[in-house]
Amino acid sequence: MRAVCVLGTGLIGGSLLRAAARAGRTAWGTAASDTTAAAAVADGFDVTTDTDTALRRAADADALVVIAVPLTALEGTLARIDAVAPQCRLTDAISVKVAVADAVAELAPQARYVGGHPMAGTAESGWAAGGPDLFDGAAWVVTADDGLDLDVWRDVAELAWECGSRVVPAAADEHDMAVARISHLPHLLAAVLASVGAGEQGDDLALSLAAGSFADGTRVAGTRPELVLAMCEGNRSALLAAVDDALGRLGAMRGALASTGGLSATVQGGYQGRQRWAATRDPLALGVALDGDPDVVLAELRELGRRGDVLEPWKA
Amino acid sequence: MRAVCVLGTGLIGGSLLRAAARAGRTAWGTAASDTTAAAAVADGFDVTTDTDTALRRAADADALVVIAVPLTALEGTLARIDAVAPQCRLTDAISVKVAVADAVAELAPQARYVGGHPMAGTAESGWAAGGPDLFDGAAWVVTADDGLDLDVWRDVAELAWECGSRVVPAAADEHDMAVARISHLPHLLAAVLASVGAGEQGDDLALSLAAGSFADGTRVAGTRPELVLAMCEGNRSALLAAVDDALGRLGAMRGALASTGGLSATVQGGYQGRQRWAATRDPLALGVALDGDPDVVLAELRELGRRGDVLEPWKA
Repeated sequence: MRAVCVLGTGLIGGSLLRAAARAGRTAWGTAASDTTAAAAVADGFDVTTDTDTALRRAADADALVVIAVPLTALEGTLARIDAVAPQCRLTDAISVKVAVADAVAELAPQARYVGGHPMAGTAESGWAAGGPDLFDGAAWVVTADDGLDLDVWRDVAELAWECGSRVVPAAADEHDMAVARISHLPHLLAAVLASVGAGEQGDDLALSLAAGSFADGTRVAGTRPELVLAMCEGNRSALLAAVDDALGRLGAMRGALASTGGLSATVQGGYQGRQRWAATRDPLALGVALDGDPDVVLAELRELGRRGDVLEPWKA
Repeated sequence: MRAVCVLGTGLIGGSLLRAAARAGRTAWGTAASDTTAAAAVADGFDVTTDTDTALRRAADADALVVIAVPLTALEGTLARIDAVAPQCRLTDAISVKVAVADAVAELAPQARYVGGHPMAGTAESGWAAGGPDLFDGAAWVVTADDGLDLDVWRDVAELAWECGSRVVPAAADEHDMAVARISHLPHLLAAVLASVGAGEQGDDLALSLAAGSFADGTRVAGTRPELVLAMCEGNRSALLAAVDDALGRLGAMRGALASTGGLSATVQGGYQGRQRWAATRDPLALGVALDGDPDVVLAELRELGRRGDVLEPWKA
């Protein structure tokens, strides 16, 4: 089993390190602070604040390096990779994929990079909030753009499966657009709904009458604002397209309501969308052989993800 | 205890008839079809398809008449009231309040009408779907516009309490605006979100990645479209104002995202709105004496509702 070096041991990286160790891998990591490193060491894990040493060890062991630092710390991390382990097997756990791929291409161009996004999380953050079960049952997107190294692709998929996740292949830009539509936009619409419902300070009539539809529709508006901002602002261009789509549909609905009074197109469309969502809850697991022409294989993987299917773990 | 005559014994009216009977009241009702009437009679309730006879009995007994027919059947029902029991004590259980008050003023102008809206329901409809517990813990709005008869107001509040509900006084127009913001707009935003998330037919990547924020934000988009349409289209002018409020906030957010990339105003505003909602979950129950100057009492009741408080049941 390939060794794993996890850069950043907050909620996501810390959980990943634990899950990899639980699976029997040799795994080590880095932390940004002495406090985090000490906490992880006290829990029995091999975590240091010395990134260069961790990366040198990764280069020697031909380990899979996983970037799990915040997006804001990405550039500095890539500079160290390019200096110490320039040709390493590299993936990441950051929630946007085009920006990371662009940064890798610019700052660590020799790295054998395949993007990853384990779609798990809690409202908490930091090493102490993590656990090896965090990724159980979650979707783990593995980017499948032309030109990627299928050998590293296999490494990332195997890590995801060991963590209990479903592997969903996707082009980096399609991933960013998808999460804008199903994760970032929901947070913004929830915020808008909460503001409209709250209305003017001092008039709580509407809020006092609110029941299930408002409670559900605004639930994620209760998320800590800094988490939502970091998530949404990092995916700005894809999010703009999703917001424009929502604005267009809401504007058309407004026009219909004002003119004919009819809301059927909006309501029927939403009903069908929700039915389609329900139908994706139990995805097919399909096998794909990774040993053909790389660009043909990657195209097949992307097509599988677009159909809403997941990759079936291959037999060892 | 005042007798109750319930016009319309679908989900809401049928549940109300059961709850009134459970409380020990003399209660009877009407049904639009022989099938419904027979089902109710088989369950031991006094239900007929003969509206005039039911209303004549209400006039004789000085009963409280409750209109629980669909909005589309309101005009015909009011015509019978004006013909048979023109001065009856009258309330309703329809989900909009200005349109009903206007129709009563026009078609049954002598009726002693106080509007009501028990905010309960399920995805089901019809007599068989009802039960006496439907209103337990629900808000029951009782309209409190100037000029209403406080004696009938007391009747409606007492019925609501017997059904297990909280009594929330509100002006009819403020009620309609409130439900547009916290019930109708949530359904429309859920529909828009479901459509944006679903995107193009044949591309299920986004839907397959959807997790909690999308599932919660689109839950009510799974409601039967005809129920949503009846609810939303009946509250057209208040809903237009709520949609415009949402469009304005979403447009401002779009501008901020495109120019500075900042979403803080949107996200912080939504967070504060959700906090304000949470603070209304445990309303104060305050007493109001109904025996002063009627318009002063009604103003006090409206103010209580605006603060998010509920009326404390008076001692018998």
